[in-house]
Amino acid sequence: MKLGAFLMAPGHHPASWRHPSAAADLGANFKEYVKLAKAAESAKFDLLFLDDTVAVKDTSKDVGARLSRSAFFEPFTLLSGLAAVTERIGLVGTVSTTFNEPYNLARKFASLDLISSGRAGWNVVTSNNEEEAANFSSQKHLAHEKRYERAEEFMDVVLGLWHSFEDDAFLYDKSSGIYFQHDKMHVLDHSGQHYSVRGPLNVARSPQGHTVVVQAGASEPGRELAARTAEIVFAAQNSMEEARAFYSDMKGRVAKYGRTEDDMLILPGVLPIPGRTRAEAEDKFAELQQLIDLKVAISQLSHMIGNFDLSAFPPDGPLPEIPEANGNKSRQQLLVGMARRENLSIAELARRTAGGRGHWLVVGTASDIADQMEERFKGGAADGFNVLPATLPGGLEDFISMVVPELQRRGLFRTDYEGATLREHLGLKRPIAPWRQ
Amino acid sequence: MKLGAFLMAPGHHPASWRHPSAAADLGANFKEYVKLAKAAESAKFDLLFLDDTVAVKDTSKDVGARLSRSAFFEPFTLLSGLAAVTERIGLVGTVSTTFNEPYNLARKFASLDLISSGRAGWNVVTSNNEEEAANFSSQKHLAHEKRYERAEEFMDVVLGLWHSFEDDAFLYDKSSGIYFQHDKMHVLDHSGQHYSVRGPLNVARSPQGHTVVVQAGASEPGRELAARTAEIVFAAQNSMEEARAFYSDMKGRVAKYGRTEDDMLILPGVLPIPGRTRAEAEDKFAELQQLIDLKVAISQLSHMIGNFDLSAFPPDGPLPEIPEANGNKSRQQLLVGMARRENLSIAELARRTAGGRGHWLVVGTASDIADQMEERFKGGAADGFNVLPATLPGGLEDFISMVVPELQRRGLFRTDYEGATLREHLGLKRPIAPWRQ
Repeated sequence: MKLGAFLMAPGHHPASWRHPSAAADLGANFKEYVKLAKAAESAKFDLLFLDDTVAVKDTSKDVGARLSRSAFFEPFTLLSGLAAVTERIGLVGTVSTTFNEPYNLARKFASLDLISSGRAGWNVVTSNNEEEAANFSSQKHLAHEKRYERAEEFMDVVLGLWHSFEDDAFLYDKSSGIYFQHDKMHVLDHSGQHYSVRGPLNVARSPQGHTVVVQAGASEPGRELAARTAEIVFAAQNSMEEARAFYSDMKGRVAKYGRTEDDMLILPGVLPIPGRTRAEAEDKFAELQQLIDLKVAISQLSHMIGNFDLSAFPPDGPLPEIPEANGNKSRQQLLVGMARRENLSIAELARRTAGGRGHWLVVGTASDIADQMEERFKGGAADGFNVLPATLPGGLEDFISMVVPELQRRGLFRTDYEGATLREHLGLKRPIAPWRQ
Repeated sequence: MKLGAFLMAPGHHPASWRHPSAAADLGANFKEYVKLAKAAESAKFDLLFLDDTVAVKDTSKDVGARLSRSAFFEPFTLLSGLAAVTERIGLVGTVSTTFNEPYNLARKFASLDLISSGRAGWNVVTSNNEEEAANFSSQKHLAHEKRYERAEEFMDVVLGLWHSFEDDAFLYDKSSGIYFQHDKMHVLDHSGQHYSVRGPLNVARSPQGHTVVVQAGASEPGRELAARTAEIVFAAQNSMEEARAFYSDMKGRVAKYGRTEDDMLILPGVLPIPGRTRAEAEDKFAELQQLIDLKVAISQLSHMIGNFDLSAFPPDGPLPEIPEANGNKSRQQLLVGMARRENLSIAELARRTAGGRGHWLVVGTASDIADQMEERFKGGAADGFNVLPATLPGGLEDFISMVVPELQRRGLFRTDYEGATLREHLGLKRPIAPWRQ
């Protein structure tokens, strides 16, 4: 079973930062991030993961000033800092294809991959909100289909650039004066509909060949992009049934791209609230739920449901008709489906989803949590999990001290790293460069 | 006297990597960079500095494959890694305004500034070659004037974004649920000729207010941009006379922007070759000069003189007429002037400039080097120096073990850090935000 530690500052519960134990300033506190990364590494997590947004999404006084995700570290700089003080854990960061040039992105990941001796991963996102677009000299956000069309080409450019130099290209031969072997350098010369990039990339190849490619898109074009290129897929299905359906759908898509099922690991998110007893776990969760500001929860739901503002509707009334999202369509469908099925009011749906932000929430003892993870892992729903601690550092510490030992006892999770690179931790093949095919 | 350590991999002499002591793979060897950064910090350097290029400039077999600057770390990732393993030294990186979005750039520097607890510096460049443009979906490189016009606006956006939150904006008040004070957040709402950026930046303010701004442009628009915004100016004049003229010209330009002479430090580059005796220093230099490949030296000269290919001309003949550069005009004038004045052949000019890459080269004992640095420092030509080690790690180690103690003995250079941030090391004021003016 593979495990990721999703270290979103300051925790995944929207009220996390208000908990007495929480590092409320985690988004600006590098020393605290170092402790978390070291803790996750000592527990032998495969990777730590950072999400991203390139905007203060909500600048309002009533809601925005109460949100803990207003300001936080940029992923490349934070992961590079963490790379210098860790040895083995994978370092996966979210970076948008929409607001970056492929050469810059390919280069920063290649550089991070070298700095970390082969531990970098890129979570590919196409970005989904107007607040971000407003920071990038573009008035209108690109339509969903267009973003994915462009993302497909973006991926081709990045993958091509990562294969600029062969593993043994750099000779550093002091006597002959040959720095690299010219026939082991490959110029990309990409000229496509959206991008024109000559290459080669000016960074040497890393020990893992190239950065591991991660995807979380669950829409139709998102799934196709993932099936073609992703080596890890983060998933957000709640029920076992949905998780299995997603798992089997995704694994079924890879063959047409010449890939095997083992080339793509599926890691659903899990938001665990572990306690020594069930009562203790439930109390912990209740304590957090009580700290939720209803306005914040409704705003969060508005974003999750496709940037549709729900604050104008009566909180105790039903969910109104929601126009189809430009952003995360699949998450929108998930939430609307849940509300209709269970006949939830806006406030009820908001509080419910606030806790897990739409992710799979498991409250219970270490044994309860391990049971459910094992069931999904063995039941064809997951190759592992991306663990979303409710609070930081507390939620991570709890998972490490309670759930990890239980998973190890069952022989489900490693007790030490087997390899050195992220690719080795995950059992992923070294990528085959075009010049080898 | 302020000192920077310009850590260009693998040293500033073009044959540096072929020297027996050189770390030829420095551009892909993070551990070696960590040692260099720690050495510079233990010698109390104000800052370390990284240049940048977003292309493999020369992909030819004859020259390109013999160049050590083909592949190297990307500055943000490398500086962030170094930030995590150092405590006091400033971390200055070169990033182009031409191939980046201002929001991304402002954010990465703000994040690096937080990670390093206030030690970040940005060397603003507008980029000057077609090889880079070819990696960024643009066929033609922007003309020099246009680049600076855009850079001026770029700077306004970045500076504006860095002032998004006041120092004490983030309350993290767990009981009231107020994360930041709304009236201490400032939305930029920039809408200009080239950029349209709403803001605010989603990173908290760093201990030094914002990243220190550095510039090296010596052309007329470059000097004006520096006079308006730069807090450090890197200079490349060779003679005392030229250095003094540049110094006084630059200091004379700041008043019209409401700044004082102390707001802008001028640090000329110096490439020192120290020896226990003059003979030892000269032998060291001769050893390096002997390792220069003439084709490499002529190619380097071609780039420096404005990307004008000199390889087609007889190496023993005079410099041909060179068309006016689109890029670094001032450096072109410097080199052409030197060749005409001293009647140098292409090969002679190439070998001469190869050693110092157009920078001020000083070969001698620690006392000789300190004498010359002191003369310029006290003679109105420099507020300090950016030290360009000929080889790495050897050239830096030599400077630290020989020249630094001599400068300290003379009371010219600190024996310990006085402050914590780069701004404090340099004696620069904390920037005044627009909302305070």
